[in-house]
Amino acid sequence: MVPPELEEGLPPRKDEGLPPLEELLGMAIKAEIGARKFYESLAERIDIQELREKIEWLAGEEKKHEELLRKIYANMFPGKEVVFPKEHIGPELQPVTRKLEGIQDVIDLIRWAMKAEEIAAQFYAKLEEMVDTEEKKRLMRYLSDMEWGHYYNLKAEYELLLDWEMYGQMMHVGPP
Amino acid sequence: MVPPELEEGLPPRKDEGLPPLEELLGMAIKAEIGARKFYESLAERIDIQELREKIEWLAGEEKKHEELLRKIYANMFPGKEVVFPKEHIGPELQPVTRKLEGIQDVIDLIRWAMKAEEIAAQFYAKLEEMVDTEEKKRLMRYLSDMEWGHYYNLKAEYELLLDWEMYGQMMHVGPP
Repeated sequence: MVPPELEEGLPPRKDEGLPPLEELLGMAIKAEIGARKFYESLAERIDIQELREKIEWLAGEEKKHEELLRKIYANMFPGKEVVFPKEHIGPELQPVTRKLEGIQDVIDLIRWAMKAEEIAAQFYAKLEEMVDTEEKKRLMRYLSDMEWGHYYNLKAEYELLLDWEMYGQMMHVGPP
Repeated sequence: MVPPELEEGLPPRKDEGLPPLEELLGMAIKAEIGARKFYESLAERIDIQELREKIEWLAGEEKKHEELLRKIYANMFPGKEVVFPKEHIGPELQPVTRKLEGIQDVIDLIRWAMKAEEIAAQFYAKLEEMVDTEEKKRLMRYLSDMEWGHYYNLKAEYELLLDWEMYGQMMHVGPP
């Protein structure tokens, strides 16, 4: 089931090839902001200390990525405001505003976050091919690798959450 | 060049097949302790705040893994002391006791840490095949995924460190 935090929205245009780099960077910044707000709001709704700290850590990471991308943007398009296209990278994460009813709600959201991280990692790998200098390619590899790092971190938690009783035993937590 | 922090030591026995699970868990616990001490000592010698914080984070993660593995061990072999075999998983990381002379020293150590994380991830995937219950398999997948997470996190930093000037610009740091 697609939770309400997933906004399908417009996928990137296909018929005209990829949008210009300026717009792609705008999409990347938008995605980082969306991911941060999603993780921040999710962390507030999670009682499991271990998992909450991990989600807060992810929120902080996405904040750093946003700042890094804004620097790259300012460097490539000096004096220009960041343009946020309507299109976005994969499913767009929205802030969690509802009360999570149980562990299954948490599991579903983690799974979608994994999907978003995976798509972001692939998107940065695509951008790596598009940018022109070794320096910019390096930065895109950095971002792609970081998102893969997030993906595997979430995947690890997801794996344990599927067996909630064990998660509690291993992580010293009470019932959800 | 192999830095002094890499102890080649004995690889796991090949001729007799894999050691029993008890010893493999002992090796895993030993590897987590070694990795933690390595990261702790490395963090103390790194002036770059951004990177130091990441290395400290890794040290904390390995500590948690050690605790998790000790619980698994206690659960599987109640009342038994952990046996630490002479063999270890891949290259064994030793604490960094020398002064690091420049960014190249840091880069070399990060590269070896990546190698150790990769081998650890593969090792836990191997253990997943060996353990008998779905619960234990899940825990091994958890550990394997976490180590992949570390690997990609380190790979990201490694990528930027290779272009030290850019790293400084992006991370607001001074010369090494």
